[in-house]
Amino acid sequence: MTISKHCSFELPTWVGPFVDNWQESLVTISQRMQLAVALSEENVRQQTGGPFGAVVVNEETGQLVSVGVNMVTKVGLSMAHAEIVALSLAQVAVEEWDLSQSGALQLVTSCEPCAMCFGAVPWSGVKSLICGARKKDAEAAGFDEGDKPDHWVRSLQRRGIVVQCSVLKAEAAAVLAHYGENGGAIYNADHGHGKR
Amino acid sequence: MTISKHCSFELPTWVGPFVDNWQESLVTISQRMQLAVALSEENVRQQTGGPFGAVVVNEETGQLVSVGVNMVTKVGLSMAHAEIVALSLAQVAVEEWDLSQSGALQLVTSCEPCAMCFGAVPWSGVKSLICGARKKDAEAAGFDEGDKPDHWVRSLQRRGIVVQCSVLKAEAAAVLAHYGENGGAIYNADHGHGKR
Repeated sequence: MTISKHCSFELPTWVGPFVDNWQESLVTISQRMQLAVALSEENVRQQTGGPFGAVVVNEETGQLVSVGVNMVTKVGLSMAHAEIVALSLAQVAVEEWDLSQSGALQLVTSCEPCAMCFGAVPWSGVKSLICGARKKDAEAAGFDEGDKPDHWVRSLQRRGIVVQCSVLKAEAAAVLAHYGENGGAIYNADHGHGKR
Repeated sequence: MTISKHCSFELPTWVGPFVDNWQESLVTISQRMQLAVALSEENVRQQTGGPFGAVVVNEETGQLVSVGVNMVTKVGLSMAHAEIVALSLAQVAVEEWDLSQSGALQLVTSCEPCAMCFGAVPWSGVKSLICGARKKDAEAAGFDEGDKPDHWVRSLQRRGIVVQCSVLKAEAAAVLAHYGENGGAIYNADHGHGKR
């Protein structure tokens, strides 16, 4: 058997125009979260993945570096969460795996990171993490968010990463709740327990 | 600013022939770990990344599904750890993000997963995780492995994933120790604390 050697993913085609047409500035943290939440909502409407969106911006200027949406089912990769996509595309944009070499960059995500994305944050070089909905909002919609250390915020802070949670929480959680109520696909792997 | 929309990575060119020329069978867990450790060692020798290797095999038959090596510095993506690469390439190979749909697949990694890769394991659909070196071996070589929950093994087991650690630990740890002693690059992001 010849092994696969190449892996790639691409944002859904609607994302480029959606971001180009976004009129709001990205000066405040709330404005940045508005874009992340809008991406999470549009991703569901366009049926390109789960209700999660993220952006990477320059912390000080608000310049947009990258965006991400959940693309697990669309691209067939379980790692393609909104945060991993946004961080990876930021690294593509600046041509450097360590984002700390490109100024103070900030990851803004519509929902608190899952266990994988929590672990990915320190490796990326972002200086701050801004979260919208909480873990329990995602769980209420049917998602398994994995096990983070109890003191996950402090763990990031110890590495010099500023963390702020529950920014536009109501708006962000509403997208998750709507997804859950409408029976959106829950793409947790089936370990013999049956798909939810 | 036009955002980047496409992200890809490819195994170093030496990996294909290396795997094709691998003569050992992959029937036992030790044999599978031998390949993961050999990949970690060759990755350093070829200067294509850090001292980490992983393989995905069919748990029962030993059929090779994919391999991965650490490619953070080579491909410029902080998520390109050996485990994420192997899991993603397995998903490319079977054309399905949920590996549990392709039989009982096993991730065999030359070192205990970092916080990110720990979080990635349940989402991938593998049925078992086999680890070589331990976290403290990687830390002794200079790597930051992140914060996993204290009971990370139990966390995976609760999700129906079998975990076995310290398989060929001495051989796996020796590759890490050799890397550390030779001043191999440590690619932890710089959060204002200076690169190690």
